[in-house]
Amino acid sequence: MRDVFILGVGQTPVGEHWDLGLRELGAAAIREAMDDAQVERPGALCVGNMLGGCVNGQENVATLLADAAGLMPIEAWKVEAACASGGMAVRAASLAVAAGACDVAVAVGIEKMTDGAAGDVAAGLATASDQDYEASHGLSFVALSALMIQRYMHETGCDREDFAPFAVNAHANAVTNEKARFRHRISEDDFARSPVVAAPIGVLDAAPVCDGAAAVVVGTKEAIRPHHRPVRIAASAAATDTISLAERGDILHLGVAGRTAAQVFDATGFKPAELDLFEAHDAFTIITTLSLEACGFVPRGEALKHAANGCFQTGGCVPVATFGGLKARGHPVGASGAYQIVECALQLRGEAGENQVKGAQRAMAQSIGGHGSVAVTHAFEV
Amino acid sequence: MRDVFILGVGQTPVGEHWDLGLRELGAAAIREAMDDAQVERPGALCVGNMLGGCVNGQENVATLLADAAGLMPIEAWKVEAACASGGMAVRAASLAVAAGACDVAVAVGIEKMTDGAAGDVAAGLATASDQDYEASHGLSFVALSALMIQRYMHETGCDREDFAPFAVNAHANAVTNEKARFRHRISEDDFARSPVVAAPIGVLDAAPVCDGAAAVVVGTKEAIRPHHRPVRIAASAAATDTISLAERGDILHLGVAGRTAAQVFDATGFKPAELDLFEAHDAFTIITTLSLEACGFVPRGEALKHAANGCFQTGGCVPVATFGGLKARGHPVGASGAYQIVECALQLRGEAGENQVKGAQRAMAQSIGGHGSVAVTHAFEV
Repeated sequence: MRDVFILGVGQTPVGEHWDLGLRELGAAAIREAMDDAQVERPGALCVGNMLGGCVNGQENVATLLADAAGLMPIEAWKVEAACASGGMAVRAASLAVAAGACDVAVAVGIEKMTDGAAGDVAAGLATASDQDYEASHGLSFVALSALMIQRYMHETGCDREDFAPFAVNAHANAVTNEKARFRHRISEDDFARSPVVAAPIGVLDAAPVCDGAAAVVVGTKEAIRPHHRPVRIAASAAATDTISLAERGDILHLGVAGRTAAQVFDATGFKPAELDLFEAHDAFTIITTLSLEACGFVPRGEALKHAANGCFQTGGCVPVATFGGLKARGHPVGASGAYQIVECALQLRGEAGENQVKGAQRAMAQSIGGHGSVAVTHAFEV
Repeated sequence: MRDVFILGVGQTPVGEHWDLGLRELGAAAIREAMDDAQVERPGALCVGNMLGGCVNGQENVATLLADAAGLMPIEAWKVEAACASGGMAVRAASLAVAAGACDVAVAVGIEKMTDGAAGDVAAGLATASDQDYEASHGLSFVALSALMIQRYMHETGCDREDFAPFAVNAHANAVTNEKARFRHRISEDDFARSPVVAAPIGVLDAAPVCDGAAAVVVGTKEAIRPHHRPVRIAASAAATDTISLAERGDILHLGVAGRTAAQVFDATGFKPAELDLFEAHDAFTIITTLSLEACGFVPRGEALKHAANGCFQTGGCVPVATFGGLKARGHPVGASGAYQIVECALQLRGEAGENQVKGAQRAMAQSIGGHGSVAVTHAFEV
């Protein structure tokens, strides 16, 4: 397989963009990434997006963005893998380059959630679960997470408040990220007192509904020019598990997270402790917890102990959510995986400003969709 | 780029499957293709689907089908490119194989349209057009086709009845295809008298709403086993044009059809006249007409003359819709591109039964989405 490098990145602020539609958000991120790479004519466009059809009444989103970004007649298609869509779009674009279909491609993740009615968005998100056996019975994504966290509390004896460090860290890191949705600190007390959405999950446990787009230009080694600060995609992997949570043998083992991380570690020779940062899929604190445990950063049942010790803060043993993560940078679902990868690239280029992990040379990003039914994991190095 | 071959095919009957959901239809096609290929553990699953979110309330369809077909933990993602989704999924799976991500992959196209209310399906289909400037103003896909056919009649002086041979041929070919939705002949008189949907388009001009799934196993040359009857994917290409019809300089030139066909002809050295069959995107007779002209099978403005002479019938100069096409085999939108490719493979394997194009060795399939805003074209040979 040909080596593939990140040659440019772009991202819109994450927020409530009432004045911008899919085409404006997508084109802005694509153009910024192309300007960053100084690339004129990429050969393919892969668009990660989940809710275009359900919430925006817009499929054929890849064509819409090829048109809006002035890239026609570029080949373009949409990649959907629930909340892992953005990461999967980067993998799809990389495969197009690795296959030799083109030498340079663009991946963009995009989601526009705030135009829909709140009920439409909740129903749209629930389409990532099993419609026949979960969503149609009223089981929302917050409720599914609540089942997982309840079980975790039962098995480990921990309390709801023990999950606070993940949210507190994410908000602290977002303060200095000008693209972030929430640029304010929260305390452990704020977390504990936040209104309950689905017991024991409170508002400050969950990533917010928002709009945004992030883009990555990928290319071959031969496409690297002197002005580039290339980041090598050292490995990537994707996997699936049962779409229904009820079918899982063990709802506290995120098999797709563990499997894809193991594939990436095998392919690169990296060990968890050797990574300088890990952009985890922190849609809910329980997902971060289970991901860290499944990937082997910490033993099962011990993530909260390490979180309490500051292990996952910038400067700690495994920095996570270095720009605020899904929790505070924000979670425009089909875009989040692309934001994670943009952030890894900025860290490895040494351009993370006040969010910089000092001397970062190896990073991993992981997107998880459908409560652990699908995941894609990338490792990067400079 | 590594050569990629079709090693197995599968398809469900196209129809109104009130008793089958996405998981049953998709798993049936996947398992049939895997049984045909005698492949046990493919490395990736690409799912072409358009309306899962809008009409079925089900995204994360690739995970659903990986689960239903017993393929977990296979990596899987959905590919959406409007009505070209099925063809694009085959291209995506081929790229994964060509890249070396795996040696054998499965592509499946699937759509389940008959469960939705008629209005939901029409609104769902309209999401492939420009929601802001077309769909939200009530411009349906039939209406967009009506604009194109009106313009064609204006420029060429032809009548509505002159488009009949395409529909008559499609129905004639579907009679002997046990997977087809409509297995009855129609006459030119039937076509002329069919109730008008959007003037001048009548019921017998348009492809039907239906359910179905078709799957293709693709693999490397090294994956070919003695029991296979491999069909080589000689080339494939995809392209985009403006999503809004109003933005096109010339609504009678299907640029994406012409461009992708030219790329495929360039890559293979094939000439239009050397193809033994062409599975065209006959969602409406005007689209078949414009595709044949844009691809260079006939000069602009002359497709209907050649149709009247039987050129596009089996045994004619360029057989189209050899198993009934979108018009009569049926058009489960995200699946149609995969059905076309399955049919090409059956023709080139000499297994088309009463639908066989004698001595077929070279075939082309073309899927078009969003009224010419996106297309993917494949050429095959044995």
